[in-house]
Order: sequence, then structure tokens, then C-alpha cells
Amino acid sequence: MAASTSFPRRFGLLLYPEFEVLDVAGPIEALIGLSQRGYEDMKLSIISHTLDPVSPGLNDFGRAIRYLPTHTFETAPQLDVLLVPGGVGTIEGIPSPHKPRIDEYVDYVRKAYRGYDGHEPLQYIFSVCNGALVLGKAGVLDGHKATTNKAAWKLITPSAPKAHWVASARWVESGNVWTTSGVSAGADGMLAWMGSLLPDKVVADVADGMEWQRVWSSDDDPFAELNGCEDVLPE
Amino acid sequence: MAASTSFPRRFGLLLYPEFEVLDVAGPIEALIGLSQRGYEDMKLSIISHTLDPVSPGLNDFGRAIRYLPTHTFETAPQLDVLLVPGGVGTIEGIPSPHKPRIDEYVDYVRKAYRGYDGHEPLQYIFSVCNGALVLGKAGVLDGHKATTNKAAWKLITPSAPKAHWVASARWVESGNVWTTSGVSAGADGMLAWMGSLLPDKVVADVADGMEWQRVWSSDDDPFAELNGCEDVLPE
Repeated sequence: MAASTSFPRRFGLLLYPEFEVLDVAGPIEALIGLSQRGYEDMKLSIISHTLDPVSPGLNDFGRAIRYLPTHTFETAPQLDVLLVPGGVGTIEGIPSPHKPRIDEYVDYVRKAYRGYDGHEPLQYIFSVCNGALVLGKAGVLDGHKATTNKAAWKLITPSAPKAHWVASARWVESGNVWTTSGVSAGADGMLAWMGSLLPDKVVADVADGMEWQRVWSSDDDPFAELNGCEDVLPE
Repeated sequence: MAASTSFPRRFGLLLYPEFEVLDVAGPIEALIGLSQRGYEDMKLSIISHTLDPVSPGLNDFGRAIRYLPTHTFETAPQLDVLLVPGGVGTIEGIPSPHKPRIDEYVDYVRKAYRGYDGHEPLQYIFSVCNGALVLGKAGVLDGHKATTNKAAWKLITPSAPKAHWVASARWVESGNVWTTSGVSAGADGMLAWMGSLLPDKVVADVADGMEWQRVWSSDDDPFAELNGCEDVLPE
């Protein structure tokens, strides 16, 4: 099967201290799988506030994991798609030892989404879990439907009072803004996003290669009820 | 709820070039979740043949991801549990550009499992996907039941002719040897392993924190049939 020529190729991953490991790895696993199935010219840039190693988690166990960024905000290349994972690092209401200066990340997301200094606007932005909080603070969710992590629903939804927050959602598609629920939902959302642009057979091959038992419906979400979440309408 | 004092605390992750991202991230996400729920004294060591960054994937897209190891084989500390992920890097039958010298990894696994030079034997060894191939070559699977990635079944199972390879298995528990099917099965297997040692409520909290829609039965495995896999009995 010939690769789609219109499929976006330039991906960026935003990485901040205390990110959540699986928020990153679910969508990235799916994208790596796609890149090995006829989309070899896909590019990935990993963007952080410095080039120092970035660690997930709140304690020494998680911090044994260290990712190396490839770019800073200043050197970030033109992107078509930006992935914004979640993690405790973004939530002011949860004390944590390695909290990043999240405003720098919010500024970059705002600029990247709208275009800046010779960079065209993003074609798509995609958040996992409370990555939606960064999108919310950047104004990206204004006038959009969105979802986020269900356990931290009440801490995150105030970040975007002009969004319609959808509670029972594994993921939400709203124009070029895709948001997913917590952690593992990122992989289902990414497969759905691919499915919106590529033939079903291509996406099925990627998912089967992951032995991923997909959540097929965007509103199949037991965690909304488990956590007593309800929709939050825009102000 | 008080943390179990007998639960093993010293975890190692074996990391080699061309590992599979989600093979690592699924179990590690679950373990990080546990470490933040009353098991703060858990330790993680990331072991590779050098301290150089280690990348997954076969092409430049995946290789933008770079993990930093914490230890080499020579400096690896005493471990209670060793996690061995899969990845194309271990499969001789699949050509790939960054193939590691896998014999070094096999030697380390053999030594670590049995104990060596002042290191006690492992309490548990846990493989994801074709990480089972490394266990097989190290002799760890001799006389055990095991499973592995279903798409590469016929390339992997000859690595351990004295094992009983179980085809329809999301994961297999065989004494202190746990093996899982491909990629995302690692998280289900890890949650099952935790469940064999810890109260259900603790494991449910970890899984719900991941918003993970668990596969509850070890024999719930549509990918065995999809790939036409059958059990391979020991010679």
C-alpha cells in the first residue's frame, strides 16, 4: 500500500520534568510503528526547556529514567504535529519536588500552535492526560471540546474556562485539537487520530503490532464514572 | 494500607539498542505508580552494555528517543527483579541497522538469574515480547512455560527448545519466571505479577491511575489466533 503523501511528517514531543512515562510511550509506540510501515520519512523532535536529561515521576524510582531532548524552545524546528503529554509536573495543585517552570512550556505551546518567527502554525496538536492543562493555559482549548485525566478532573478543567470539557471520553476530536483521557488513553487517541487520516488497514497493522486491545469508541470511558466526573460547559 | 514488607524492592531494567518503547513503558508506568502509592523505597537501575544513550526503533524517527542507562553489566547492583523488554535488536532473523552484541546481554541475564560474584540470584525475572528470546538463550526458560510476541512466534520459540511455549497467553507465570506476549501485554503481565504479591486494592489503584482497561485473564489473547500461533512443546 502506497504511503499517503498528505500525512503530516514533522512530529514534536514536549517533554517536561515529572512527565508521565506512558503518556509519552503510548502515542510514540504507535508513531514508531507507523514510521516502520511505509512512513520512513517521519521526523521526531523532542523539545524541552534545556537539553539536560528529563525524568518522569516524583521520586528516585521514576527518576532513574532519563530522556535526552533533541531541541530547546529556541531551536525547535517547524512542526506539523505537537504531542503534549501529562504528568504531575504541570499541576500546581499537587506539590512535587521537581516542578518545571510551566509558563515557559505554555508560551511555547501558544506560539507553536499559532505560528511564530518563520514557523507556520501547527496542523494538529495532541495532548494526553493533563497535558490538556498546558493547552488550556495556552488558550488552545478556547471554543473547543476537550477531555483530560479523570482522577484530576477538578484540578485541570479550570485551566480552560472557555472549553467544553467532555467527561465520558477516551479521547475528543475538535478540529485540529485532539485531547485524550489519562495515560493509556493516549495510545487509543493516537490510533484514532491516525485512523482519521490513513486507511484502516494501516492503523490496524500498527495496533496489532503493539498487540493493543483497542478502545474503539471515543465515549467508552469507565474512568469518568469511577471518578464521578461530569461535563464542564464553557463560561 | 501499610506497604508489604516482603515485596521485592530492587528492580533492574535491561536496555539494549532497538528495544521496543512500550515494552519498557508499560511495566515501568505500573511500577512508578506503585512506588508513589506507599512503596517509596523501590529502586530502579537501568542496565546496558555501556552508559551511552540507548535508542529504540529501526530508523531516525525512533532514534530521536534516547534513554540514559544508570549502570553497565560490570557495575549492576544486586537486584530482586530483572525486566527484559523486547525489540527487534534481539532477533537475528530480522536485519536491522543498530543490532547489539546480544550475547553480552544473554551472559548478564544468565549470571543475574543464577547469582554471581557476590550477587544473590534474582527473586523474579520478567520479560516482555521477544525479551523472552534473551531469557531463552540464557537457559532461563529450560523446563518452564513461557510466551512471547505472537507476530514473531516462529523466530523466537526456537531460542528455548526445552521450554513449553504457550500460544494463547497474554502472560505466563512459571515459578519465578514471568513472560508476556507482545508490547502492551507487558503492562497486563506486570499488573498480574503485582497482584500475585500485593492486595487487589493496591493493584487496582495502580491500574486505575493508568486508566488501563486491564486484560484480566492470562489466556485472553486474540493475537495468537490472528497470527496462527500454536503451542510448542519441549523437546
